[in-house]
Amino acid sequence: MLKTLAILTGGGDCPGLNAVIRGVVRSAIGLHGWRVIGIEDGFEGLINTPRWRELDLNAVRGILSRGGTIIGTSNRGNPFAYPVEKNGKVELTDISDRVLDNFRKLGADVLIAVGGDGTLRIAQGLFEKGLPVIGVPKTIDNDLQATDVTFGYRTAVAIVTEALDRLHSTAESHHRVMVVEVMGRDAGWIALESGIAGSADAILIPEIPFSMSDLCQTIKNRAARGSRFSIVVVAEGASADGEKVLLKTAGENLGVERRGGSGHRVGDALADCLDMETRVVTLGHLQRGGSPTPYDRILASRFGVKAVELIAAGRYGEMVSLKGRNVVGVTIASAVANINRVDPQGELVTTAQHLGIMVSRNPNQ
Amino acid sequence: MLKTLAILTGGGDCPGLNAVIRGVVRSAIGLHGWRVIGIEDGFEGLINTPRWRELDLNAVRGILSRGGTIIGTSNRGNPFAYPVEKNGKVELTDISDRVLDNFRKLGADVLIAVGGDGTLRIAQGLFEKGLPVIGVPKTIDNDLQATDVTFGYRTAVAIVTEALDRLHSTAESHHRVMVVEVMGRDAGWIALESGIAGSADAILIPEIPFSMSDLCQTIKNRAARGSRFSIVVVAEGASADGEKVLLKTAGENLGVERRGGSGHRVGDALADCLDMETRVVTLGHLQRGGSPTPYDRILASRFGVKAVELIAAGRYGEMVSLKGRNVVGVTIASAVANINRVDPQGELVTTAQHLGIMVSRNPNQ
Amino acid sequence: MLKTLAILTGGGDCPGLNAVIRGVVRSAIGLHGWRVIGIEDGFEGLINTPRWRELDLNAVRGILSRGGTIIGTSNRGNPFAYPVEKNGKVELTDISDRVLDNFRKLGADVLIAVGGDGTLRIAQGLFEKGLPVIGVPKTIDNDLQATDVTFGYRTAVAIVTEALDRLHSTAESHHRVMVVEVMGRDAGWIALESGIAGSADAILIPEIPFSMSDLCQTIKNRAARGSRFSIVVVAEGASADGEKVLLKTAGENLGVERRGGSGHRVGDALADCLDMETRVVTLGHLQRGGSPTPYDRILASRFGVKAVELIAAGRYGEMVSLKGRNVVGVTIASAVANINRVDPQGELVTTAQHLGIMVSRNPNQ
Amino acid sequence: MLKTLAILTGGGDCPGLNAVIRGVVRSAIGLHGWRVIGIEDGFEGLINTPRWRELDLNAVRGILSRGGTIIGTSNRGNPFAYPVEKNGKVELTDISDRVLDNFRKLGADVLIAVGGDGTLRIAQGLFEKGLPVIGVPKTIDNDLQATDVTFGYRTAVAIVTEALDRLHSTAESHHRVMVVEVMGRDAGWIALESGIAGSADAILIPEIPFSMSDLCQTIKNRAARGSRFSIVVVAEGASADGEKVLLKTAGENLGVERRGGSGHRVGDALADCLDMETRVVTLGHLQRGGSPTPYDRILASRFGVKAVELIAAGRYGEMVSLKGRNVVGVTIASAVANINRVDPQGELVTTAQHLGIMVSRNPNQ
Repeated sequence: MLKTLAILTGGGDCPGLNAVIRGVVRSAIGLHGWRVIGIEDGFEGLINTPRWRELDLNAVRGILSRGGTIIGTSNRGNPFAYPVEKNGKVELTDISDRVLDNFRKLGADVLIAVGGDGTLRIAQGLFEKGLPVIGVPKTIDNDLQATDVTFGYRTAVAIVTEALDRLHSTAESHHRVMVVEVMGRDAGWIALESGIAGSADAILIPEIPFSMSDLCQTIKNRAARGSRFSIVVVAEGASADGEKVLLKTAGENLGVERRGGSGHRVGDALADCLDMETRVVTLGHLQRGGSPTPYDRILASRFGVKAVELIAAGRYGEMVSLKGRNVVGVTIASAVANINRVDPQGELVTTAQHLGIMVSRNPNQ
Repeated sequence: MLKTLAILTGGGDCPGLNAVIRGVVRSAIGLHGWRVIGIEDGFEGLINTPRWRELDLNAVRGILSRGGTIIGTSNRGNPFAYPVEKNGKVELTDISDRVLDNFRKLGADVLIAVGGDGTLRIAQGLFEKGLPVIGVPKTIDNDLQATDVTFGYRTAVAIVTEALDRLHSTAESHHRVMVVEVMGRDAGWIALESGIAGSADAILIPEIPFSMSDLCQTIKNRAARGSRFSIVVVAEGASADGEKVLLKTAGENLGVERRGGSGHRVGDALADCLDMETRVVTLGHLQRGGSPTPYDRILASRFGVKAVELIAAGRYGEMVSLKGRNVVGVTIASAVANINRVDPQGELVTTAQHLGIMVSRNPNQ
Repeated sequence: MLKTLAILTGGGDCPGLNAVIRGVVRSAIGLHGWRVIGIEDGFEGLINTPRWRELDLNAVRGILSRGGTIIGTSNRGNPFAYPVEKNGKVELTDISDRVLDNFRKLGADVLIAVGGDGTLRIAQGLFEKGLPVIGVPKTIDNDLQATDVTFGYRTAVAIVTEALDRLHSTAESHHRVMVVEVMGRDAGWIALESGIAGSADAILIPEIPFSMSDLCQTIKNRAARGSRFSIVVVAEGASADGEKVLLKTAGENLGVERRGGSGHRVGDALADCLDMETRVVTLGHLQRGGSPTPYDRILASRFGVKAVELIAAGRYGEMVSLKGRNVVGVTIASAVANINRVDPQGELVTTAQHLGIMVSRNPNQ
Repeated sequence: MLKTLAILTGGGDCPGLNAVIRGVVRSAIGLHGWRVIGIEDGFEGLINTPRWRELDLNAVRGILSRGGTIIGTSNRGNPFAYPVEKNGKVELTDISDRVLDNFRKLGADVLIAVGGDGTLRIAQGLFEKGLPVIGVPKTIDNDLQATDVTFGYRTAVAIVTEALDRLHSTAESHHRVMVVEVMGRDAGWIALESGIAGSADAILIPEIPFSMSDLCQTIKNRAARGSRFSIVVVAEGASADGEKVLLKTAGENLGVERRGGSGHRVGDALADCLDMETRVVTLGHLQRGGSPTPYDRILASRFGVKAVELIAAGRYGEMVSLKGRNVVGVTIASAVANINRVDPQGELVTTAQHLGIMVSRNPNQ
């Protein structure tokens, strides 16, 4: 039977989204002869008159190696809590019935929702209201427990590592401390892996409140041993002992972004306690951009292909997920909400420490 | 107790070897206060008067991001079958007692042998003769079953993928068929993964004898659909139906290397069956060189740290190995000999096929 | 007056062709409100019923950073010597009137021909027969004297340098001699510049017949000083003393390309005279592919913009050209035929020698 | 006669400094048999007991491709205005005699000073007091008129262009305006060249006060034509009409750097006038780091070789300089002070405009 698949991408952009779209389109059309359409700008594209485009084989030509998403994305458009003006006041309103109506107008049989925690929760909500839905997880900072790893994450680690490689030469030449702020509000994976790969001297992650005095001492010890520079990698969600963790709310993401700035807070504190020049670099949006690494291209392609396979098997309400070496389907319901955090006693942290890297605090201080 | 660790690297060079050495040195010295020395040029450095150098913290500074191995490597120097001239004839002779003697002169307590199948077999042989040995597996084409993946492999995939990205523009602009020969004598992992990541149209791997007529037909079909170029990735060990698999023997590796040339054989055959320009590119040694990817830097660092941990636990005769998310120790004896081959019915091959890529043969032809 | 510009790209592909096309389209449409069409596959697209496509602003979106040419190219299609079958025999025939006729059917006012020596000669021939023509020079190996430098060249140098960086690790780890063959049949610019940038030990260029015994001695001297590896960069047109220079004819470019192989000839000779492992890497088509460097994107954009400016000024028969810091117009007639060769006594060769690099022969031997 | 050359690097680090050092060492030792020593951390290394190291062939092995400077650099240490404490107050004091004394203790015959405007002025001052000096110009933002271009600049342009390539995917996917702040306090070269190469929509440079209303209108016009994102490149020294130009003084460079923030000021203003999401990325120190491009490696090597040639010719008081295709010597005195600014009517600005890029103001508004 000829099916029409609709696909949307929600939340922050992420290298590999296009590879998922391409994987869906090529296997849906090539293997099954189905049709695929792309809803534009995430759930925003379903709020009013649906905005969409045809995704045929031509539309996905050459996109495997390109970052971002050809169908656009948005952090907005939650149908279960949409800002609607009523009597001069804006209220978050459930307009999910309207969205379902709009979806039906498309004539599509199933929705593939590619996104992070927020997008997947919406997908689950719509599934519970009867919409045939398949989920594809996306989280650039690898903080989703329902899958071993997601696409985009390794690309981000590669970008940060390349930046650290570069900053080494400045740090060494000027005998400076370079503080590099990277993504990771709740989970320190990017900081930890890129810090190991980029030869950081200290890594500060959200999972372990860091000790500012340990950090100062670590850098002083290095200087005493003749290493006149240091590289400190700070996850944006890292906080010091006794410091209140500052989480940005979704609303703060609108308009010009302000450095909440774990990086700058650490830089300021270091400038106080050290007699060395300190520089802060905030990598920000650079971490999300550009061509996905081969690993991410492959993983995202596998996710796209598997999503179509789940549709062929009628396994709606499921989400693709990497478990060990295999991509499998798990229920979306079970998947959301559990955050994948760095284990403070795990092998990766221990490895970093055995390499001589301080991870949030120095066990020997 | 103060220990002295000796480390050597054997076989073909591989991005990440330096990261292993650095991981060993930093954790052995930093954590345990031990001493590390590096034996030069693999087992060759033990054949005559031992050649070695001190590996202190300074010696491993800045090497994490560098390809190759600072202590040199060699494909020669098998102590159990060393070419010795006797009565004007060269005979392969067991000189392992001499090598053990030489090792003892170094005053080292344990040998860390980093290498592929050949190196690990020698290590096992010496272990059976009483030498405390720890193994670290290295195989750039990922053909070792005792570990989920080895360092260097993903770097090779990244290099090939980048080359494929580049060759696309030539292929498209000139409406050519580009045949790209990559590493992989027994296992087609590099061809398969880089082929998926680099958007190949056909991938020929050793695990599935390929059909030349399917390949011609696939390219003709593409041309008929308006795609006037094609990219074919060929593992060096790929062979066509009925073709005798040509394995290079070790001896053939000496002197100037000759293209055995699965790539050129495929290119010649394509030029016969197609009315299109065909070009062959052999990536060769480019695949082994340069800075390891972040993943390989981390994995190799973990291997180095774990090797020291195994020594601290006295687990001689074991080899480090990635199993799922953890680096563990397994016996070297159990590790050698089992080749990790692509499963012709596995998910990766299926994914490639669902993406529209022919893998050795076209199931629809 | 509304003009219609036709553009074609001829000869081998080259990073920056798309940037030229984009520069033409954006300034012709944006500044003048003209129309641009692209003739497909070089002059081949004018031989029979013209093949072309509309080039509006959308058509050139996102192509600045992409290698190759979106309108295709071809080494064939010389209207003044086109292979035509007559009485069972193929004769090179002047069909330029037919091509002019075909061009007129397009309704275009002027032809922008982007290409190397061959393409520019054809353009000049058609100009002499009355066609309003503007030339844009393209030569990846920088062998055209009419312009200080052309786009694509620096990208090729960057690709070769990156390869040399990579090959260093293999060469060092294995104590090997790596011979790397690069583009440059008549001019050794790519070999010379990438050899300096990539820290080669010897560079063999067509402009100076090389001495094989000097080369062997140079490598032996290095080994005697403790450098147990060497990197030799060989331009494809390099030849040894007394060796006949082998130029590939155009006809040899059809079908599967054979290694004419200056690289392999040098590798063989080295294997004879040295007691070291030697490996040969032929970079081939890798050198033409992929995203142009910023310099090439800018230069190519300037060329495209200038071509439109020449049209606006009615300066037909001219070609854009970089002279010092400025892009100017020169007559195509004066431009073709003079080859830009490396000066054996020039500063670049001297610099290489002062850095300790042998350039074709060792002045101190 | 055996000479001893001393070399120092001053001011901000810059890709290519190591290539200069290597060029000096290899030609001084290899060609002349001289000796080279490296003074550490710029003129700081001569203020007290001289700090220096031997620079033999081994010391410069492998540094050609590495960013930064192996002998360290510093923005401090001006011998003609050195902060000295007198009676509890810090006064800028002329201690150049002491520095000359310290230099003499080294037993060196000549000083090669590699640096920007500040370093070269000091060098000239010391030359006027009798020290044999050779200058090598270094300015990453290409603002020195005495040489056509300096090393490091093209590397910076390449890094910014790569960042712009990456940010395009985020901008497109989210329909955002990305504002990217780049180096260039007095001269807009980096902004202009990387903006052209990276397909910016607007470029704001110090040489032309920009019009905020033109910028808003340009972005709105793009949106009206269907381009729902824009990329704006801002030189750090760019200022709007009527805005006072804020120049950072040297003193402000100490300690933690604060965003002077032309990028954020533009971002804030855009958020006010547009109904689109805006994001600001400050590239900062990333622009100085990492491996130099081939062009910069070659230019820096030529500078190093030429510096030794000037010494051999006894041309003290001169500085190496690229003029057209040749590296020549010019007097340091004539070289400092003239800033190389972008010509608002020059070909590069015009090219950008013809490509449709707004440069500080929209000529059509």
